[in-house]
Amino acid sequence: MTIFSDEYFMQIAINQAKEAKEKGEIPVGAIVVANNQIIAKSHNLTELLHDVTAHAEIQAISAAANYLNAKYLKNCTLYVTLEPCQMCAGALYWSQISHIVCGAEDSKRGYRAFGGKLHPKTTIKYGVLEEECRNLMIEFFTKKRT
Amino acid sequence: MTIFSDEYFMQIAINQAKEAKEKGEIPVGAIVVANNQIIAKSHNLTELLHDVTAHAEIQAISAAANYLNAKYLKNCTLYVTLEPCQMCAGALYWSQISHIVCGAEDSKRGYRAFGGKLHPKTTIKYGVLEEECRNLMIEFFTKKRT
Repeated sequence: MTIFSDEYFMQIAINQAKEAKEKGEIPVGAIVVANNQIIAKSHNLTELLHDVTAHAEIQAISAAANYLNAKYLKNCTLYVTLEPCQMCAGALYWSQISHIVCGAEDSKRGYRAFGGKLHPKTTIKYGVLEEECRNLMIEFFTKKRT
Repeated sequence: MTIFSDEYFMQIAINQAKEAKEKGEIPVGAIVVANNQIIAKSHNLTELLHDVTAHAEIQAISAAANYLNAKYLKNCTLYVTLEPCQMCAGALYWSQISHIVCGAEDSKRGYRAFGGKLHPKTTIKYGVLEEECRNLMIEFFTKKRT
């Protein structure tokens, strides 16, 4: 794996998703990268915090903005293991983030299924380490149902 | 004004919006009410916190969930001075809140303009103390432009 490639950074987001999994959370992880530097790392904490807004992306956006001391995430890339939901797409819209890289797509709860929109300044790429990201989700929900 | 009417509670949300205004924030306020008791009060803090996710609704949802020690805002009503955006509609979706009462509509940035969705369990009412809510916004942006 090449250093600073999309796969390299997605693997770090996946490690975050695994931390969520260990806590019994839906395994989604996210990081924000600026100039090849990781400025935020987070994972889903909705169960632990009893807070539906504690998605990995929302935390990553807040942490990155805090690090930059700026509202807008210009020249930043979010790596996230699952396609953002409507809420997170909305947060990403307001952040005007430059680029988003997703692992697995989410045909049911993803923002596109809800007719959501990203900012015109934002580009998005899907399918980076998709299988590993998707398998984490499948494994979690299979376990939960049995 | 009748106690515990929608206008009564919206006036309290308007007071929150005025607190935001005094801090130089876009004047949006929100409260969450359960059994006629206010369990969360908040206003927009995006500028102060350098955080695009610090909308009144997001903070109100987190605070109410924290108060209830529960993820879902069942039998709760959100009073908000402005129609929620895509992000906040998404957060409200996940919260499964029972009812939303809005002051002013937002034809540009409101969730409906973005094709957003609320939870099937959620009902919504528009136009409570609409003029006062809208005037706060108009005044803010007129002042900003001059």
